[in-house]
Amino acid sequence: MYKNILLKIEYDGTDFCGWQIQPDVPTVQGEIEKAINTLCGGIAEINGTSRTDAGVHAMGQMASFEGDIRIPTERLVYALNNLLPGSIRIKEALEKPTGFHARFDAKGKKYIYRIMNFSQRDPFKRNFYYFVEKPLDLHAMQKAAAYIEGRHDFKCFRAAGSTEKETTVRTVKSLSIRQEADEIIIEITGDGFLYNMVRIITGTLVDVGHGKISPLEMPLIINSKDRKKAGHTAPPQGLYLAEVYY
Amino acid sequence: MYKNILLKIEYDGTDFCGWQIQPDVPTVQGEIEKAINTLCGGIAEINGTSRTDAGVHAMGQMASFEGDIRIPTERLVYALNNLLPGSIRIKEALEKPTGFHARFDAKGKKYIYRIMNFSQRDPFKRNFYYFVEKPLDLHAMQKAAAYIEGRHDFKCFRAAGSTEKETTVRTVKSLSIRQEADEIIIEITGDGFLYNMVRIITGTLVDVGHGKISPLEMPLIINSKDRKKAGHTAPPQGLYLAEVYY
Repeated sequence: MYKNILLKIEYDGTDFCGWQIQPDVPTVQGEIEKAINTLCGGIAEINGTSRTDAGVHAMGQMASFEGDIRIPTERLVYALNNLLPGSIRIKEALEKPTGFHARFDAKGKKYIYRIMNFSQRDPFKRNFYYFVEKPLDLHAMQKAAAYIEGRHDFKCFRAAGSTEKETTVRTVKSLSIRQEADEIIIEITGDGFLYNMVRIITGTLVDVGHGKISPLEMPLIINSKDRKKAGHTAPPQGLYLAEVYY
Repeated sequence: MYKNILLKIEYDGTDFCGWQIQPDVPTVQGEIEKAINTLCGGIAEINGTSRTDAGVHAMGQMASFEGDIRIPTERLVYALNNLLPGSIRIKEALEKPTGFHARFDAKGKKYIYRIMNFSQRDPFKRNFYYFVEKPLDLHAMQKAAAYIEGRHDFKCFRAAGSTEKETTVRTVKSLSIRQEADEIIIEITGDGFLYNMVRIITGTLVDVGHGKISPLEMPLIINSKDRKKAGHTAPPQGLYLAEVYY
């Protein structure tokens, strides 16, 4: 029966060279396509909402694929999880109308970035946090974050060397920062994100938290549209694609 | 200056082929010896208290080494951690009298085994827990554990094919099992453990928790001295060497 299936996917990105399929290296897309083809056969490609980088995790990546899928939709989750490595879990499988596309139809996304503000490393958490030794000024970071919320040209927060020609204007709907014990959790929701945008925003906020950048400089940084004015790029292991909105 | 140093070590065993050094594969001992030799030079070997298997973790592995160590002892922790991969952390370095040996002088050890009693897998926890889907009867497991405490010949809990000729009599000082949300935590303290003993005890307790073995059978299993009478061997990823006693 011809169906269009939307999957909700959780993964530990540590052992993958990112989402997007590439020859000869392990990728999340590659593993899922292999499992789908073992199960259903003849599925050309799955469309992921976000091409997460190597080491980046997801609690709510979405991906869609169409084809002649004979296995009942309600059994797909169990059957796929049986074939997938333990680092990837399918959380949900939904039927969508023909033509629905996990990426093109996405209205927004939420990312979470986890910082461990602690002076010692922790072997068990190293792949899941950005370890920042020096104390961070949470209040300064929150003040800076308020300037980032809203509709802006975010070219300053786009990885240098990005060649996409499309607009760099995006809306950050909310950017919240909270502390729980030694953990600092950044939640950012928006209609779309430029390449490395969340990691550069996080790095800039960490630089603010260390007093290298003043929160009051944020409007100037954004208006400059210059990547060099913003802060460093935070590492991939603290980043989680939390949710996709349709 | 000639010194005998005792290290306290924490590691995520996921990416290592165990503690013990072997050619051409990553081992915890191999990484630490490499770091020590970079720092001090000419150290032949470090003696670990426990030869943990591939995938087994430690919060409190101990290892000693002797030699002409010029770096001040109080700087060893920082210097070694600078050279080691993020999966290994030196927590402490202490000076001990000549002749002290981390393994031969150990009076006892504590292991912790972590079970996740939950019906779904979790990509972020897969390397740190034994995932057991079916509900476990905690009370039955605790009843069985009481029979294991004490001084016994524990041959039934030693990996089949072990060829050590020494005695298989050991004292389990305490064996406690508690539940925290979906997590079941087994803590076992004893004067020494046979090869795979904690994993076989855990597997046997899980079989008890599933009703495959009755708690009342425990004395018979122990008295049989027969590995085949005991339960399955629990996987390595739930096991942590927690503490060594001197």
